[in-house]
Amino acid sequence: MKIISFATRVGESYGLVQGEGIVDCGRRLHYPGVKAVLEAGALGELTVFAAAEPDHALADVTVLPAVPQDRKVLCVGLNYRAHVAEAAGREVPENPRIFARLADTIIGHGAPLWRPANSTHFDYEGELAVVIGKPGRRIPAARALEHVAAYTIFQDGSVRDYQKHSVTAGKNFPHTGPLGPWLVSADEIPDPAALTLTTRVNGEQRQRTSTGDMILSVEALIEYISAFTPLAPGDVIATGTPEGVAHARKPPPWLVPGDVVEVEISGIGTLRNPVIAEPTA
Amino acid sequence: MKIISFATRVGESYGLVQGEGIVDCGRRLHYPGVKAVLEAGALGELTVFAAAEPDHALADVTVLPAVPQDRKVLCVGLNYRAHVAEAAGREVPENPRIFARLADTIIGHGAPLWRPANSTHFDYEGELAVVIGKPGRRIPAARALEHVAAYTIFQDGSVRDYQKHSVTAGKNFPHTGPLGPWLVSADEIPDPAALTLTTRVNGEQRQRTSTGDMILSVEALIEYISAFTPLAPGDVIATGTPEGVAHARKPPPWLVPGDVVEVEISGIGTLRNPVIAEPTA
Repeated sequence: MKIISFATRVGESYGLVQGEGIVDCGRRLHYPGVKAVLEAGALGELTVFAAAEPDHALADVTVLPAVPQDRKVLCVGLNYRAHVAEAAGREVPENPRIFARLADTIIGHGAPLWRPANSTHFDYEGELAVVIGKPGRRIPAARALEHVAAYTIFQDGSVRDYQKHSVTAGKNFPHTGPLGPWLVSADEIPDPAALTLTTRVNGEQRQRTSTGDMILSVEALIEYISAFTPLAPGDVIATGTPEGVAHARKPPPWLVPGDVVEVEISGIGTLRNPVIAEPTA
Repeated sequence: MKIISFATRVGESYGLVQGEGIVDCGRRLHYPGVKAVLEAGALGELTVFAAAEPDHALADVTVLPAVPQDRKVLCVGLNYRAHVAEAAGREVPENPRIFARLADTIIGHGAPLWRPANSTHFDYEGELAVVIGKPGRRIPAARALEHVAAYTIFQDGSVRDYQKHSVTAGKNFPHTGPLGPWLVSADEIPDPAALTLTTRVNGEQRQRTSTGDMILSVEALIEYISAFTPLAPGDVIATGTPEGVAHARKPPPWLVPGDVVEVEISGIGTLRNPVIAEPTA
């Protein structure tokens, strides 16, 4: 089941993706959005619409972030060995490096990535994203997947010169973090370590990995993160990027306006965003 | 003008602090909270109530975080030379180290600080906090103070063993970040570099500094932060802590349940919070 958040001329809604169409669930259910569906533990209620006729063509809607109104988007740095190696001078960390994404950095599939007006060191990072469905604190790894409602894709657009100052600065320029294109319910992904992630820029492959190459698994990350912060429905964990980012290449193929970044994960889909120059009014 | 957010049996409100009382502005104005007042640029409207009779005794209300429903609480690490020196092996950073606080870490004056169930390395950090009143991006330092609506106090309760993993983890345990006791409007603080900050634990002085000892001034911090993220009314910048934290003392006097932490800043007031063991249901 693929659940998409979208906007049309009449407003925002959410629904099921069926081929090239969308069954509009927002007009059939009283939950105002995907976040409310997750909070009610009601993702399963959407299955009754699986055979309905689509109400919209995918091509006709504006896709919103896969989980709008996020409370917590927590990201993991250095979680693939080959990426740790390409980031010179780094040892594999014993514990995950966590940072937070502010809400105004998150955009939907198709929305333009803003290349900052004050930096040219704009980089891509394809990542598997985990969406929490059941609240929890100090969740043991053995029970972690019970707290996962869905998976999606995150592109952790990074401003490398600012990231040298602090990871929070480099990762929080506005409109640099696409999340989507939709949620895939966890029942369709029994093993989040068995997916293939590919990042392309203008159709050229830049990253390719199995999610099984993560240093810390999805289960271990949920255990670690929930040890310091409570997790709740709609919270997102971005699980880190593999090798192949621009700043490790010589010369670095920084993203420039006109580029198109795609992150594809098997069983989920493809998150595609064009790069534009940041609007400076 | 001191603006306090508070709760009584009938609900949440905000008002002006007058001696030991509060003039309830929430029942006299249509703004639902301090955040809405700031968003409307309407802090000045509260001055008409400056001579009104208090409606509540300060002692009778529950004090809420000085800015509830925060969108961004951005904090600065290593912004006093003597604190950089006591944090062994650190050089003075050329650019500020920024990290973000999640909303569930922020509490009000008087509310208990939660000493984590899974760490004993719980530390205090007294800080001057700046509250934004006017939106802005790429604000030049020379105009930065025009964007400040008010000042308050932040106690950046830090879990030092997790902070070694990542600053985000160590700074985001729930109920570790008191903000308050109230806002002091910027007109009463013409120079934020001329304040005296004192932190006490159980009445014993642990930190004392002039805010003029900051490495980067309030103006410089606003310029730097607004270069990577848009600032909006209600956003908070915590400006860093001076020397004297527990982890630099031998042996470290970690906070334990029963302790009381006070941070006093001249011209603002005193933020006081007791420490309890984290509730684990």
